[in-house]
Formats: sequence, C-alpha cells, structure tokens
Amino acid sequence: MSPTPVTYVSPTQPASYSWEATNEEVAARYGVDRATIVRFDLNTSPRPPGLAAELLAAGRFETPLSEYPPSDYRRLVAAAAAAYGVEPDEILVGAGADEILDLVGKTFLPPGGEAVVPAPSYAMYRVITEQRGARCVAVPRRGPDEAWAMDIDAVRAAARSAAVVWLCSPNNPTGLAEPDGAVERLLAGLASDAVTDGREPPIVVLDEAYAEFVDASLLPLRLAHPNLVVVRTASKAYALAGLRVGFAVARPETIARMAPYRPPGSVSTVSVTVVTEAFLRPDAMRANVARVAAERARLAARLTDAGWVVGPSVTNFLLVTFADAAAAAAAADGLLRRGLVPRTFGAHHPLAASLRLTVRDTAENDRLITAARAARVAAGSARVAAGDDQATARVDP
Amino acid sequence: MSPTPVTYVSPTQPASYSWEATNEEVAARYGVDRATIVRFDLNTSPRPPGLAAELLAAGRFETPLSEYPPSDYRRLVAAAAAAYGVEPDEILVGAGADEILDLVGKTFLPPGGEAVVPAPSYAMYRVITEQRGARCVAVPRRGPDEAWAMDIDAVRAAARSAAVVWLCSPNNPTGLAEPDGAVERLLAGLASDAVTDGREPPIVVLDEAYAEFVDASLLPLRLAHPNLVVVRTASKAYALAGLRVGFAVARPETIARMAPYRPPGSVSTVSVTVVTEAFLRPDAMRANVARVAAERARLAARLTDAGWVVGPSVTNFLLVTFADAAAAAAAADGLLRRGLVPRTFGAHHPLAASLRLTVRDTAENDRLITAARAARVAAGSARVAAGDDQATARVDP
Repeated sequence: MSPTPVTYVSPTQPASYSWEATNEEVAARYGVDRATIVRFDLNTSPRPPGLAAELLAAGRFETPLSEYPPSDYRRLVAAAAAAYGVEPDEILVGAGADEILDLVGKTFLPPGGEAVVPAPSYAMYRVITEQRGARCVAVPRRGPDEAWAMDIDAVRAAARSAAVVWLCSPNNPTGLAEPDGAVERLLAGLASDAVTDGREPPIVVLDEAYAEFVDASLLPLRLAHPNLVVVRTASKAYALAGLRVGFAVARPETIARMAPYRPPGSVSTVSVTVVTEAFLRPDAMRANVARVAAERARLAARLTDAGWVVGPSVTNFLLVTFADAAAAAAAADGLLRRGLVPRTFGAHHPLAASLRLTVRDTAENDRLITAARAARVAAGSARVAAGDDQATARVDP
Repeated sequence: MSPTPVTYVSPTQPASYSWEATNEEVAARYGVDRATIVRFDLNTSPRPPGLAAELLAAGRFETPLSEYPPSDYRRLVAAAAAAYGVEPDEILVGAGADEILDLVGKTFLPPGGEAVVPAPSYAMYRVITEQRGARCVAVPRRGPDEAWAMDIDAVRAAARSAAVVWLCSPNNPTGLAEPDGAVERLLAGLASDAVTDGREPPIVVLDEAYAEFVDASLLPLRLAHPNLVVVRTASKAYALAGLRVGFAVARPETIARMAPYRPPGSVSTVSVTVVTEAFLRPDAMRANVARVAAERARLAARLTDAGWVVGPSVTNFLLVTFADAAAAAAAADGLLRRGLVPRTFGAHHPLAASLRLTVRDTAENDRLITAARAARVAAGSARVAAGDDQATARVDP
C-alpha cells in the first residue's frame, strides 16, 4: 500500500514562528568560536545563583528523580506565595512563564476569539493567541517620548470584543514600566465597559517578568480585579531560566478556573527544589538586581559615548536605536561577527531600527562596548574615506 | 469600585480531573509516616540511574542554568534519534509525554472535533481531548480473555469522523501489547476508509511509553504512515520521570506540522543533559528492564499465592482484579493504611473492581506481598467469625 499523504490542516494553525539561533548556529554562521559567544538577546543573567550548584551536588530532592514531581508542587507554591506576598491558592505553577501564557490561552481564549496587545511587546502573546485560533489585535504604544506607554483608551476600545488583554510591565522590549496608575485605570475602564455592554470584562494578563528589577508589583490590583492574572518567573532576576519555572498569580477563583488545564507535572523535580530554595534565600536575586542596576548605568553611558542612542530602561536590557533598519542590521552583523548576539527585530517590526541588548556582567558588557566603539571607528573611517559628512565624523581613540 | 465577578466560561472548558494524592496527602489521610510511603500507582521506578547524581554533582550543563535551554535541544534530539533508530528530524521534544499529547491536540484536534480511544487506556487522552473542546469517543476493548485487545473494526468505524485516534501499546492500565499486526491492520483500514470517504486519515497516536519493557516498537510503521505519531518517554524504563522529558517520533513532515505549536523551551537544561546521557549510556535502562521482568514474575506469583487474581503483564505494572468494586476499594484501603499507594479506578470505570500496582524493588514488593497476605488473613478471619463460606476460607500461615 502506498502511503497516504496527510494534508489535514487544523483550523487553528498559527502563523509560523522561529526561535532564536542556538550558539552552534551563530558559531557556524558567523565563524566564531562557540565558547566565546555571549547572549545579549535573551534577557538572561550571566550565571545562576550558587545555591543551584550546591543543591544539585547534594542531590537531595523532594522525591527521587525516578518519581514524578509532587503533583501540587506544594513546597514551591508555599515559597512562591511567601515571596510574592499572596496566598498559596493564588498561585499556579508552569514550565516557565510561557506555559502560564499557554494556560491562559487554553482557559480564557476561545478559538475565533480576540486578544489585544499594546505593541510592541513580548512576541509570545501573538504566538499563543494564534495557536488558539484566535485573532491578535495590536494596539500601537505611544512613542519613546511618552515612555512607550500603552494607549489606554485605544486598548480599552479594542478590548470591548476581546477575551484577553496581554499587558507586560515593565515592558519587553521597550524597557519601561507603564506609568503609575495606568494599569489600574485600564482595569477600571474595562470593568465599566463590561457593565455597559452586559458582559464580563476580559481577562487581563499582566506579565511582570521584570518586576524584581523595579522592586515593585501591581499584584495588589488582583484583590479588586479577579480578571487580572499576573505572570511571574524564575528566569530573569532569579537567574534560573534554564530550569523553566513560571507562575500565574491571581484570585483563587481565577486560579481554580485555570487549574483543569494544568498538566499534572510539567516542571522537573530538580527545578522545583532549586527554585523553592531560591525563593527561601533571595539574597542572590537581590545581588543580581543590584548588579544589573550598576552595569545598566555603566553600559548605557559607554554605549552612548560610543555614539549609540540608548533608551532609558528599568529592566535588565537596553533598547538601542539606529538611524534606520539597515543601520541596525549592520550593527547587529558587526556584533555577531564578534560572537555577541543582539536581539533584532524584523524589517516590518515597529522597532526595525533598534536592537535589544541584555545587561550582562562587566567583562561581557566590555566586549559590547568595545564592539560599539569599533563600529564607530569603522563607520567614521568609511565616512572619511567617502568624504561624507566629515564634520561630524568623530573618531574615538 | 466593587469587584466585577468573572464568570466567562470558555467553550472549551474540560471536564474537571484530579491528580493523584501527594505523599503528604496520603500520610495525612491514612495516618502513616510520609517516609514509609511507596508509590505503586505511578508506574515509576524505585530509583534513577546513577548517572543522574553523577551529572548533577559535576554541574556541567550544555548552557549555564541562568540561560534558556538550547531551543533546538540538538544533542538530546540526536541521542534520542540514535536510541530510537530514526532521523533527528523525526523527533520532537516535550516536557514529558504529556506535553507531546498536548501538542498533538493543538496541532491535529480541532475544537468540536472527535477523538477515538480504545478504553480503558491512559486517562490523559480524554483529558487532552476535552481540553481542546473536542469529543472523546471511547470504544470498549475486548476483555481480559482476549488480552484486552482493541476492537479494530469498532475503532475503525468510530474513526471515520475523527481527527485523532489515541492508541497505547503496551496499554496502560491493562498491561499488554496489542496483538501482532493489529496496529498495522488498523492503520491500513483507516487509510482505506480515508480513500473511500475522500478525506485524509486521522492522526494515529501510538503511545509506546512502555515499549522498552518488551524491547519492541512499532516505529517502523511510520515509514508507510505519515499519520502515525509515536510517543516515547524517559519516565518509565529510563527511570527519570522527575525530569519530565518525552518525545514525539513521526515522519519529518508530520513533526514539521507539530513544531509551530512547540514552546521554545519547556524542558529544563538539567533534564536535557541527564536524559541525553541516559540515551548514550543505556545500561542502566536495560538493568531496570531486567529488574522489572524478574520482580514482575515474583510479585505476580506471590500475590497469586495470597489469593489475588493477577493479570498477565509485559509492563512494569500488574492489574489485579477483585470480586467487585467494593472488594477492590477495601483492598486499596488496606494497602493505603500501610503506606502502599495503589492506582484505583472510579466506581463507574470498567476496571472499578481492579487495582493497578507498579512492580517496584524487592523490598518494596515484599511489603505489598505481606499486605496481600494480611488482607487474606483478615478476610478469612472475618468470614470465619461470620460463619460465612467457611469451606473456602483458607488462611495462610
């Protein structure tokens, strides 16, 4: 029998998306030594807290690794609840914040429905929305002069037919938090519109992946808004992205609605044990936040000295903007040839002329600063050679 | 402003389901010491391979734990492909086999669609189906006298309107593989029906979580059937359930259809490294399979000696059947009071009169045997006391 081709197409087929190149791919494409590659594109930290190696070496986990993780992640949930200042029944555990977003989609976003996202923001909101067979409505954010704030009225208007609103504050990739009171105003507006329209308000996801870097959270808003689902993660300030642990934090009745969609154990026992301890011993996280603050200021200043236009940031990354998309692509190429991987944006992205750069450790950041200076020398030389705009072609020593 | 209650109900809300009780819950409910509890209900192994502790202590991972896992899991994929005898582009990695089932649902099962499962089988097929807002059609298996085989013609008939067929061989919880040629016959029949009906055949998921215990796989069938998705796992014979790693194995074009639904990194870097090594050094897995074979025979013989009716099994668990659901519940209660956790089935389940018991190590199995003997003594004494059926009330020493 000849094979029957399978061409059945799911009505929920999402737009294709691709993930970042691996170190191997970068090494092969740019001819650099894999060992020298530094990821400035993933908003991760240079190294995990020391407690990780300590716990792994001790090898004592809640249950042996041959057993499934405890299906209720009880100790992890208790530690997370204490760290976030909420009750354990307000916590849902996922395999990274990405699984939390997926659970939001499964629970609250019907196929054929709509979700709203102030754009630009984290790309997974669109991906999750399209995976559900739902439509993602992008509402442009205000510009850099207005701190990339969401347009509350426009989001509110778009949300009248939406099941979910995806917020991110501090926002990735623009690096700033929503202005004081903005999320609260939106929540109040959505509640008011819902009453007017005789429907329930949409679920508002507030992704606070970078909250530790501002030492502030809008979690208290959940008390008045059971439609608020806050997303937290061990990947950023806690420096444990490789362990894949994220959380939804919301009112118990909202968590209870999501729970039936949660798989019984998507998070490794090793991850459960290490992240539990990271919550119980938060000094490493605080030190990481302090490192970021110091290095962020230094890196921004040195890149600015080198002639790059660096936006303000309260997070562990900087948004650097160039004259145009071609200049950004050229800068990215120059970095990649040195094994420094920036986050680039597609040609049709509102940030096509920008690169997003993670604040890493001093030595790693110095490589970035050196590259920026070299790019300037090269650009200056090219302009000098072309006799183009010589008056402004300052060349650093 | 008073909080607005959220009562929006997703059209895809699944039936509620619950997970197994944790050790803490069992300890509290049955008044046993948590440290003495043994899980006979999860088909796991008594201990992980030694290489796990060795790798954790060494602390060398592909990428630091502060970074995301490599988005293509390249080394893990290569090791899995070699272990399963397939090409790397025929492999998709998930956070346990459960995530693979979820990805099948997302890719192939439209909301409102139908999925078919020969029942009884692994409960997650129904859960995943209902989470998708699809309908799960259970087709009763033949009875224990016919080795719990699926009813090929009935499955084929039900599958005419289905998008997915969930198979499991060797089957959980019945413990036996489909008869030789059965899956191939079903695949051929589905292909033939598809031609007749002018549609594509449904996706056939073949969960081979227990394949290593029979040292046989139906993976070669994928070559003629691109609608076949085989599921494999590191949780059973590899004894690494706590690391949450599973795989889809299928033709490259089928894997390519699933890939857009895969999150970029749901599997911990630690899990990636340990499971990669477990594939490269399969001796521990083979020793585990040998342990299971030896202990399975011994445990079945001793439980039979104790008067329990033990079905044949090619897996790492036994299905034990009692006179009725009440007798099974009483037996379960007796085990739980000794800290031995059996898998029970609901009152309306076709296996309500049965318990599923994992084959564990010698000392743990001895506790189960002792409990079975004690139950018999108790039952015999009760019957003697009641003057009921004294002729058959044999009491073991």
